[in-house]
Amino acid sequence: MKIAFVQMNCVFGAVDRNLFQASQLMDSKEADLYVLPELFNTGYQFTRKDELNSLAETIPSGLTCQMLLKIAARKDVYIVAGLAENADGKFYNSSVLIGPRGYISTYRKIHLFDDEKLWFLPGDMPFRAVQIGDLKLGLLICFDWIFPEAMRSLALDGANIICHSANLVLPYCQDAMVTRCLENFIFAVTANRIGAENRGNKSLQFTGKSQITAPDGTILVRGSSSAQEVGVAEIDPLLAWDKNITGRNHLFNDRRPELYKLR
Amino acid sequence: MKIAFVQMNCVFGAVDRNLFQASQLMDSKEADLYVLPELFNTGYQFTRKDELNSLAETIPSGLTCQMLLKIAARKDVYIVAGLAENADGKFYNSSVLIGPRGYISTYRKIHLFDDEKLWFLPGDMPFRAVQIGDLKLGLLICFDWIFPEAMRSLALDGANIICHSANLVLPYCQDAMVTRCLENFIFAVTANRIGAENRGNKSLQFTGKSQITAPDGTILVRGSSSAQEVGVAEIDPLLAWDKNITGRNHLFNDRRPELYKLR
Repeated sequence: MKIAFVQMNCVFGAVDRNLFQASQLMDSKEADLYVLPELFNTGYQFTRKDELNSLAETIPSGLTCQMLLKIAARKDVYIVAGLAENADGKFYNSSVLIGPRGYISTYRKIHLFDDEKLWFLPGDMPFRAVQIGDLKLGLLICFDWIFPEAMRSLALDGANIICHSANLVLPYCQDAMVTRCLENFIFAVTANRIGAENRGNKSLQFTGKSQITAPDGTILVRGSSSAQEVGVAEIDPLLAWDKNITGRNHLFNDRRPELYKLR
Repeated sequence: MKIAFVQMNCVFGAVDRNLFQASQLMDSKEADLYVLPELFNTGYQFTRKDELNSLAETIPSGLTCQMLLKIAARKDVYIVAGLAENADGKFYNSSVLIGPRGYISTYRKIHLFDDEKLWFLPGDMPFRAVQIGDLKLGLLICFDWIFPEAMRSLALDGANIICHSANLVLPYCQDAMVTRCLENFIFAVTANRIGAENRGNKSLQFTGKSQITAPDGTILVRGSSSAQEVGVAEIDPLLAWDKNITGRNHLFNDRRPELYKLR
């Protein structure tokens, strides 16, 4: 199967424009699964609660999900996309998994970064992988990468591919995804933003370099730091089932939870 | 304080020679804490049980520990060193922490790699950090690196510095230590072997590139791939106490164990 990151610039508050960009980019290269950045439709830096009231959407009835549902059905593909969720007046930094036959699931970002804590509630549902035909997908958002427990939870739950929507501003994550994939023997698609966003007194520069990483840590595709682009890798996701990394080492069975102190 | 890796070649079974080499290397550069490779005194590839019977030592009464105790007292330093342990006929791939006033503790490798499972029992004691004055040390051995739970357990138990004795043959660990240190905001000293070891029908080439890594992922020193050398970094280990990586993010308090699935 072909898996893809959609690396794009986003304009804060310009939802129609951002949806159009994403749609055009997805049409520019064929894939079976597209991963879009965190908060790809709204932009990143909220500065007032009323911005959330007007921009955050109900899942899946809001505009963004409805448009993604149409694209997924038309193209017969799966899409993972980050967006601001309005759940009866509670706001989450979420991502949705949408398939050709409809809405599938939502992940609410569990580890919020910095100012996000001013606007969003942290995710309230456990990490779980989602079955899609023969394989399982796991959703992560941006800063989740720094907590090894996040991808580990999804991998132990059977995920073959991690769909990682991001708005990265620091240089560490892309290299760290090599370790994350190796330690779980799993695929990962990190879809990052590019460009700058100036809001209030803060200017953020997003680092691009979106990346598809293989279970053995190979970087299959890495985007540039400044161009809108779709990166595609053709993979066999079932490779990630076999955690035997030597004749005598199984990455998961070799774990010794009784000797860890993780509370 | 100054922390150091001792990167050395080891000759299988030549304990006296290996101890002498290690001693000479430690005398070549000043430090407060030296970390030696895994199984530095015996070499790595055991091929028969009787080799273990003759080479594995009781801790701390065996020859290797007794010599390390003398060096630590003479130099007024701490030493972490990997060696084969004989505990009443049970064999472990262990490392010892020895201080200027005597023997302190043993760590028995919890995650055995490949053929090691033929000769050693896996560690049977939980990961725990060891208090040394103002700071805490955590011991890991080689393949433990691929399990994020290992360093996480030690970091959550308060370790400032990970002393990582290794006999690495694959190219992944050194870069992964950047991620390990970042995710735990902790120092790490990886002491690796160099050279080849031919035993039975197997030849292993050890990859060197021993490394001292800072909590922000900076590689403070990295050794060559083929020379015996001592790498030293001057650090403030107390830096690792403060896990606030942004004004609103504490690496440990932000963890959400209730949402992880780690069994």
